[in-house]
Amino acid sequence: MLHLEHLSLNIPDTNKPRVVIIGGGFGAVNLTKDLPDKDFQVVMLSKLNYYGFWPLLYQVATAGLEPESIAEPVRKIFDDRKDFHFRFVRVTNIDPAAKTVTTLIGSIRYDYLVIATGTTSNYFGNQQIKQHAFGLKTLDDAVNLRSQLLQSFEQASMTRDPETRQALLNIVIAGAGPTGVELAGSLAEMRRHILPRDYPGLDFKQMNIYLVDGLDRVLPPLSPESSKNTHEYLEELGVIIKLNKLVDSYDGHTVKFKDGEQIRSQTMVWAAGVAGAIIEGLPAEVVERGRYLVNTFNQVQGYEDIFAIGDVAVMKTDKWPKGHPQVAQPALQQGAHLGKNLVRQLRNQAWQPFSYFDKGSLAIVGRARAVADLPGNKTLRGFIAWVAWLFVHVYYLIGFRSKLIVLANWVYRLFTYQRGARIIVRPLIKEEDKMGEVFVRQPAN
Amino acid sequence: MLHLEHLSLNIPDTNKPRVVIIGGGFGAVNLTKDLPDKDFQVVMLSKLNYYGFWPLLYQVATAGLEPESIAEPVRKIFDDRKDFHFRFVRVTNIDPAAKTVTTLIGSIRYDYLVIATGTTSNYFGNQQIKQHAFGLKTLDDAVNLRSQLLQSFEQASMTRDPETRQALLNIVIAGAGPTGVELAGSLAEMRRHILPRDYPGLDFKQMNIYLVDGLDRVLPPLSPESSKNTHEYLEELGVIIKLNKLVDSYDGHTVKFKDGEQIRSQTMVWAAGVAGAIIEGLPAEVVERGRYLVNTFNQVQGYEDIFAIGDVAVMKTDKWPKGHPQVAQPALQQGAHLGKNLVRQLRNQAWQPFSYFDKGSLAIVGRARAVADLPGNKTLRGFIAWVAWLFVHVYYLIGFRSKLIVLANWVYRLFTYQRGARIIVRPLIKEEDKMGEVFVRQPAN
Repeated sequence: MLHLEHLSLNIPDTNKPRVVIIGGGFGAVNLTKDLPDKDFQVVMLSKLNYYGFWPLLYQVATAGLEPESIAEPVRKIFDDRKDFHFRFVRVTNIDPAAKTVTTLIGSIRYDYLVIATGTTSNYFGNQQIKQHAFGLKTLDDAVNLRSQLLQSFEQASMTRDPETRQALLNIVIAGAGPTGVELAGSLAEMRRHILPRDYPGLDFKQMNIYLVDGLDRVLPPLSPESSKNTHEYLEELGVIIKLNKLVDSYDGHTVKFKDGEQIRSQTMVWAAGVAGAIIEGLPAEVVERGRYLVNTFNQVQGYEDIFAIGDVAVMKTDKWPKGHPQVAQPALQQGAHLGKNLVRQLRNQAWQPFSYFDKGSLAIVGRARAVADLPGNKTLRGFIAWVAWLFVHVYYLIGFRSKLIVLANWVYRLFTYQRGARIIVRPLIKEEDKMGEVFVRQPAN
Repeated sequence: MLHLEHLSLNIPDTNKPRVVIIGGGFGAVNLTKDLPDKDFQVVMLSKLNYYGFWPLLYQVATAGLEPESIAEPVRKIFDDRKDFHFRFVRVTNIDPAAKTVTTLIGSIRYDYLVIATGTTSNYFGNQQIKQHAFGLKTLDDAVNLRSQLLQSFEQASMTRDPETRQALLNIVIAGAGPTGVELAGSLAEMRRHILPRDYPGLDFKQMNIYLVDGLDRVLPPLSPESSKNTHEYLEELGVIIKLNKLVDSYDGHTVKFKDGEQIRSQTMVWAAGVAGAIIEGLPAEVVERGRYLVNTFNQVQGYEDIFAIGDVAVMKTDKWPKGHPQVAQPALQQGAHLGKNLVRQLRNQAWQPFSYFDKGSLAIVGRARAVADLPGNKTLRGFIAWVAWLFVHVYYLIGFRSKLIVLANWVYRLFTYQRGARIIVRPLIKEEDKMGEVFVRQPAN
């Protein structure tokens, strides 16, 4: 390990306005694209060195896609810019008076600060769940969950004890939002087409996929019609849906619900809640339910030069009184919009308020089973929604290479029902020596 | 974590002869293919759930290929067999008197036992090097080394201290065999075509790639002619070659050589030696220099029903007095050959002795820079050797899907000089909380 004192942010000073962006996701990358290299210095501070296409993360967790195929290195995206500076570091504080942000290895002055940190999992203060449940927010999480699922099947093949086997074959997904639904659907397809071939000694009728939510319907952000369609598809695929149901505790072995029910499970995935990734330093009153309150210019309440975009921002408008949905589109649009406003500023033009263009919502449950809410209160379902889903997701994946590989994988899977990435990769060497690889378990954090 | 006492190997009893294979590599997989499902029960015990195409592992470490593209799940390869039983578990002991092998979760009786465990890194007893150096034996290792290299460049971008920066940009590869040479060449190509674009703030003239070996030439298993060609290619690519040079110690910061020279480096890769992965239980006299002594039927000395194949076996013949080279071909051929002999046994036919068909050796240094030793003391170099290398490696990669993706990647890189997999994935969550992702360092073991 390197000593921190040898590192510093090491950003050259220029005469251009410096835009410091915290985060490297949809909003951050789209904003940077709209800031001309000749007019702005862009400093991007991120804890991940890649731009992840998070809507497909569940595919990585279920061995459908390689991790690398849904990620682009941030530096590669902007390798033609001369005054773009990526730094792989954690931000710890914002000082609006001094106009600086502080990182683990030093501070940097900003002219404009953009908070585009997205969300983190929200465990509502339950440390036990945080420790034992598997998250699904980054590639690390997805690779970890993939290994956990495959190891569970391996272990289930190696027990004669019915209770142990059942605990290994019970997968509990807490949260029936898009992540939970798509993960449950993908697991159900895997159970149907892949796992019985891979594990002929196991009876996959015993495998239970529980999808649990505290609300009274799946996919609550979508229309009741799409929720109903999704519910139907999930049941067709054999997912056990439990609504109006809250998780009380999870010790890594047993999920206990608030109503007293218990399910023994070695794998609980936590997709039940997110909170904006708030940075210390701004006053508490600009944060509401874990999101920065912003005006229609994405300015954080009370600041002219501090912005928040995407999931971490809440912009209340007449049409969206609770703010926009925490999905990719508002982040992409706000990033691009803020970029254009900063260019207007440079030209002394008036800023334009942001207006969200709702392109609709899509979710996939399985092959030829998808749902869509279109603008104008129309809904789609079935094969046509599935084709729309495929098209939209490939279209938005950045980079020629990723698209090609994702497409190749999909075409391959379409014809063969196969999944290639069923590889257990768990670089947890220190624990292996004690326990042997087969028993290593690393809950996501 | 699951308690071990709940697990057992859980293999059904049949009337067929049971072949227990320890390992899941070239020899093990090729052997299984030649054992008819209807005649044999095959039990494969392995610490990895995938069949890795190890000759391309350095490509994963240098972000050229995704980990999944050089690996196939073992279960997928044999999913059409009814009496094949894969178990993801570590073997701890062999008891030839009882005809059983013992694993972490119980024992199993064998009719034929095949040891196909390959090799592990040999640190010649130096625990400090083992702790701090990066290995390159499995996908875990390769992903870990890839992350380490990328993190080093990230950190080098964040320091004004010239000594720290130099330590981060010095990569020391101990061992100039095929792995060391191909890794050095690939890193040199990366330095030339990729890194200056990704890290415009760094001067890659400062990046030093040291290739160190205790012997007096690179690629000692190949002909002197090919060694000379390889040496020339490596120097063209700017690799610093140090021969007749032995590593004395490495503390994670400074490589000390036996002759007193020191190089500060945050990344030393250990490719300097391997030893057969010996299992406890057989008498010491059947092991010579970490390999099981076998006769021309691959029977371990003194046993009729215990075999060793591939790297972990040493079969001394007139033509190969020190045994065959520890590469893929002998393992593949011995696996297939043993399979045919076991079938002969079933039919009461006489066994055939193994004879190695040397197809030649290939190594790649960079684009259009490869060397080959062909049978009959001929050598190839340059573009034609490179094309031969491409052809052979794609040909031997198992599985339609892998080939397609590897080819797509190569074609893409051929035209663009790009590498897509520059993703830092390090599921080392527990250490992150203390130190922040940017400073996590996990040496391979």
